Amino acid sequence: MGVVVRNIERAQASVIERLAACGVATVHEAQGRTGLLASHMRPIYRGARIAGSAVTISAPPGDNWMIHVAIEQLQAGDILILAPTSPCEDGYFGDLLATSALARGCRGLVIDAGVRDVSDLTAMRFPVWSKAIFAQGTVKETLGSVNVPVVCAGALVHPGDVIVADDDGVCVVRRETAGEIADKAEARVAAEDEKRTRMAAGELGLDIYKMREKLAAKGLKYI
Amino acid sequence: MGVVVRNIERAQASVIERLAACGVATVHEAQGRTGLLASHMRPIYRGARIAGSAVTISAPPGDNWMIHVAIEQLQAGDILILAPTSPCEDGYFGDLLATSALARGCRGLVIDAGVRDVSDLTAMRFPVWSKAIFAQGTVKETLGSVNVPVVCAGALVHPGDVIVADDDGVCVVRRETAGEIADKAEARVAAEDEKRTRMAAGELGLDIYKMREKLAAKGLKYI
Amino acid sequence: MGVVVRNIERAQASVIERLAACGVATVHEAQGRTGLLASHMRPIYRGARIAGSAVTISAPPGDNWMIHVAIEQLQAGDILILAPTSPCEDGYFGDLLATSALARGCRGLVIDAGVRDVSDLTAMRFPVWSKAIFAQGTVKETLGSVNVPVVCAGALVHPGDVIVADDDGVCVVRRETAGEIADKAEARVAAEDEKRTRMAAGELGLDIYKMREKLAAKGLKYI
Amino acid sequence: MGVVVRNIERAQASVIERLAACGVATVHEAQGRTGLLASHMRPIYRGARIAGSAVTISAPPGDNWMIHVAIEQLQAGDILILAPTSPCEDGYFGDLLATSALARGCRGLVIDAGVRDVSDLTAMRFPVWSKAIFAQGTVKETLGSVNVPVVCAGALVHPGDVIVADDDGVCVVRRETAGEIADKAEARVAAEDEKRTRMAAGELGLDIYKMREKLAAKGLKYI
Amino acid sequence: MGVVVRNIERAQASVIERLAACGVATVHEAQGRTGLLASHMRPIYRGARIAGSAVTISAPPGDNWMIHVAIEQLQAGDILILAPTSPCEDGYFGDLLATSALARGCRGLVIDAGVRDVSDLTAMRFPVWSKAIFAQGTVKETLGSVNVPVVCAGALVHPGDVIVADDDGVCVVRRETAGEIADKAEARVAAEDEKRTRMAAGELGLDIYKMREKLAAKGLKYI
Amino acid sequence: MGVVVRNIERAQASVIERLAACGVATVHEAQGRTGLLASHMRPIYRGARIAGSAVTISAPPGDNWMIHVAIEQLQAGDILILAPTSPCEDGYFGDLLATSALARGCRGLVIDAGVRDVSDLTAMRFPVWSKAIFAQGTVKETLGSVNVPVVCAGALVHPGDVIVADDDGVCVVRRETAGEIADKAEARVAAEDEKRTRMAAGELGLDIYKMREKLAAKGLKYI
Repeated sequence: MGVVVRNIERAQASVIERLAACGVATVHEAQGRTGLLASHMRPIYRGARIAGSAVTISAPPGDNWMIHVAIEQLQAGDILILAPTSPCEDGYFGDLLATSALARGCRGLVIDAGVRDVSDLTAMRFPVWSKAIFAQGTVKETLGSVNVPVVCAGALVHPGDVIVADDDGVCVVRRETAGEIADKAEARVAAEDEKRTRMAAGELGLDIYKMREKLAAKGLKYI
Repeated sequence: MGVVVRNIERAQASVIERLAACGVATVHEAQGRTGLLASHMRPIYRGARIAGSAVTISAPPGDNWMIHVAIEQLQAGDILILAPTSPCEDGYFGDLLATSALARGCRGLVIDAGVRDVSDLTAMRFPVWSKAIFAQGTVKETLGSVNVPVVCAGALVHPGDVIVADDDGVCVVRRETAGEIADKAEARVAAEDEKRTRMAAGELGLDIYKMREKLAAKGLKYI
Repeated sequence: MGVVVRNIERAQASVIERLAACGVATVHEAQGRTGLLASHMRPIYRGARIAGSAVTISAPPGDNWMIHVAIEQLQAGDILILAPTSPCEDGYFGDLLATSALARGCRGLVIDAGVRDVSDLTAMRFPVWSKAIFAQGTVKETLGSVNVPVVCAGALVHPGDVIVADDDGVCVVRRETAGEIADKAEARVAAEDEKRTRMAAGELGLDIYKMREKLAAKGLKYI
Repeated sequence: MGVVVRNIERAQASVIERLAACGVATVHEAQGRTGLLASHMRPIYRGARIAGSAVTISAPPGDNWMIHVAIEQLQAGDILILAPTSPCEDGYFGDLLATSALARGCRGLVIDAGVRDVSDLTAMRFPVWSKAIFAQGTVKETLGSVNVPVVCAGALVHPGDVIVADDDGVCVVRRETAGEIADKAEARVAAEDEKRTRMAAGELGLDIYKMREKLAAKGLKYI
Repeated sequence: MGVVVRNIERAQASVIERLAACGVATVHEAQGRTGLLASHMRPIYRGARIAGSAVTISAPPGDNWMIHVAIEQLQAGDILILAPTSPCEDGYFGDLLATSALARGCRGLVIDAGVRDVSDLTAMRFPVWSKAIFAQGTVKETLGSVNVPVVCAGALVHPGDVIVADDDGVCVVRRETAGEIADKAEARVAAEDEKRTRMAAGELGLDIYKMREKLAAKGLKYI
Repeated sequence: MGVVVRNIERAQASVIERLAACGVATVHEAQGRTGLLASHMRPIYRGARIAGSAVTISAPPGDNWMIHVAIEQLQAGDILILAPTSPCEDGYFGDLLATSALARGCRGLVIDAGVRDVSDLTAMRFPVWSKAIFAQGTVKETLGSVNVPVVCAGALVHPGDVIVADDDGVCVVRRETAGEIADKAEARVAAEDEKRTRMAAGELGLDIYKMREKLAAKGLKYI
């Protein structure tokens, strides 16, 4: 506790954009169904789809001091990721902090706790994925850390990892493999486009994926 | 497990339309406050109001194989109902399956588990009522059954029963009594219209329903 | 149980308007972070921001009889607050009761239970903050009380207290201190406006709030 | 609502005893992993293992009137099963009702709601599986039904079905198949005894179940 | 925040003992089914039945500083009641604090948060009713208050109120009415003893409470 | 997925024993309040206190195949740690697997999912910390991995890390720092012994920890 890592490596901007374009569900599949945050992480408004580099925050329950510290570490294109050290749904973040984060080019916040001022945040188009919407205030008394590895909503996040977030939730991609995952995700998108066309035309998944034999072998009975 | 019933009986299309028009709350009242699914079943977007014939799916946790099997059994106007065999919030269903289901005339999905690609499903206006929005992928390894009776979110559903779903949630009406329930529901709508007019004019429920005497008899005291 | 208090004192209309303008998060801060209802109290639609005088209802689980009694006690500008005597998510309130409440000038409902007909309520712009959306019906068999103190979603509410509600949730302000809290809340709004301008210009909270020394004194290390 | 079915068929006493001896986990496996109540149904004390014929109760939230009605329908060896018509955790049942039920030979209670007087019930060795322990009282105002089919904690229960309950939870067996399931369950017990001996001697499941080839075929890699 | 009230009034010791003897369920009934804490408040071990005077604590999330302050205010026969200012399950209290509280004659702790060292607390027979068992540590940085009114697990508690707690949960009795409630609770115990005897002899609640006519009038049908 | 790491490093047996003796709450404090699993991880019976080396399992929802694979990797003194790849409460583990694990010297199981046969496991004194007790069966169809890093109930666990578990929950200690943490934990135990003696004699934490000045400086008022 009480550590701020100033220099973190980030993935290439172009790779990050490609991951954003693919979306959470596809990226999650592309990396072998890993890296997904828990389903309680919901967006405060619908329609945002972002990706960015993780600036991580480990914060005590009900204490948002470290967010101020983290904002100084932000670079344009970053996303704040906050994991409380014990379960908490207090409103760590509101429109003032969002104003400050936006001024540094921050793309959004992912917080396994609460957020407030959601009307303002929505009007500002500052996207947040959170566990709760809750006006409960916080204090500034106890240190946490910035840019250390954290477990957020069940997923391990290293500073500089790529965060992808949309209406389906939030997924983390290791910085080291981001390019490879972007390749795989784009390949999935292409493959899905072809299947979507066939399905829209009425072809069945049973036939496209050649499932009938395997189903029969397992013993499926039609009556 | 491992059974697909091909031929199920469905309610009359006209009866189904009448139930859709009445909406969940009224239909639920009309059939004696039975048939309602649990309140955790929420629509992925607001404003859909549908009714249709249930094509039921009993599926293992984290395994969406049977959805492919069920889609082949769909007729125009049907609704897919999926109950996992143990609690699960994985994303069994996304935009590809929705494309396939739509191509067969499916009106929507009710799933006591998770769904993903909700931005796409919203854009397609394919309504889903689910327990969770979660990008978590599923496998295709274990058989379930299609068109067998299932308990979904606490309600017993037989294949061919009428599913009514709107912003208030989901209600199931037994196929055999659907016509009778539609009659009762429409009578309620008519009765409510008259009361709504009186209440809008300032008349009190206390007087419209003649409650004052019964309240006094129970001992209500004004101070 | 079984008591209706007819005459309650209310805060000044102008004070109530000022509190509404400040919003839940600011009012909650202004009164020392007290009075907030639990985070499970969510609005049925986004964008409403109201304040009004509490007409309180203590009701048995699954019994909405007392809402009819309470509506007679409403004055223009009031808000209904319902606390069930044991946990319940049944749909106590729908569009008929909303019509009746609106006819008496009611501004909204706060209910630690369920609500139904949410499409209609949304179309009517009758705002509700609730624990659940659930079509489950209720009975009218057992007495409760109106305009007695209640604990609603963890907060103590006296009849005539000021309820402030918006997208962030619900906060209660004691009637006796409402003017003083409005003053403090408006002072906070003014102070925040100045900080927002500085933050938008890129100044950091670390500097605006002069946190760097205190952080160093606590032992924060930059590496 | 408002119906009491007096004459229900019950399974053979000897079959019921055999199912009790096998226990919940084995019986659940023996009938193809169906019939299990949700995991929130927990015993008020550890160590009870019972089976009996279901006398079912459908009751309104917070209203225990029908339990008195159901007790009159009890025969020696029966188990009371209560499903509320909407979610509720009130304490429907305490030591007085247990005394009355015991006087009629009742073996226990399964209730998807609350129970109270658990110290007394434990001292009496009257086993209960419930969703909650809660002293909250109930009223006697609204009718429910006795000995109709109910969905209890997600499982469909017909009157006269066999209920098996132990520290692992609660399972329901259809009366018509109880004998057949008892045969299968006992066969499982015998097979497990043999495996247990081999495992206790250090033999691995990998070898006993011949899993190594299938694992390798699926691609498992040892590194 | 930041207030300690030194002198609080307490109920008579003899009244407190009488309430303890009656137990939570009976006391709750005797005061009109009010004062019960939520069902998530569970004892760390079974078998304790206590009553005592409330020394209340309002504490920030994850900060147990005020418990030290409160212990100084304890008199023999008191019970500590802690309500966090926002939801928290951290372990505020362990065996050291229990040792200190016991040294001052404290009878137990009721905490709408977490507790730790439960093996030691059980061995010491220091009873605790809590929301969670969790080893998570707390800090000592932010003030709260001692002996102010708090809402704990949904119930309003004034300092000096009588807390009754047993395996069924926790109930609060206003100090001013404690004697009257003790009278009513003892009357209930006596009445229940008589009914228990009759029920044990096989008489039915239907007859003891003369319910048959009212059930028939409501429309109950035996088939 | 689909990887088994055969050779993992383990901490010294003597260090592991020392950590077990200190217990979860103390170890968690000694390593700066990190490494604790979420509070939903509860023991199936009270009184077990163990420590051992983690053999980790990443398993699909509802599929316990990998437990068989993991058991072969067990050495005497190990503890199995299972994290499902998505939330699941199925009963992955029962008395047969416990028999097999015990035969290899396994000390217990920590599973962020369900367990069954808890009566037998209790009789065998095979301790388990789990999210649920649930008889629901699992399949053996899909690969997972053994001895890879996992996030279990919110905590990152590497194979070979030391798991400490008792009635307070479960804590993980990195293998590399286990000796150092054991030193710190034992120092805490010694310090606590001295404080316990003073507190038992009636001395207050306010004085032992010299809190009075700091409280006054923060503004605490006695009235």
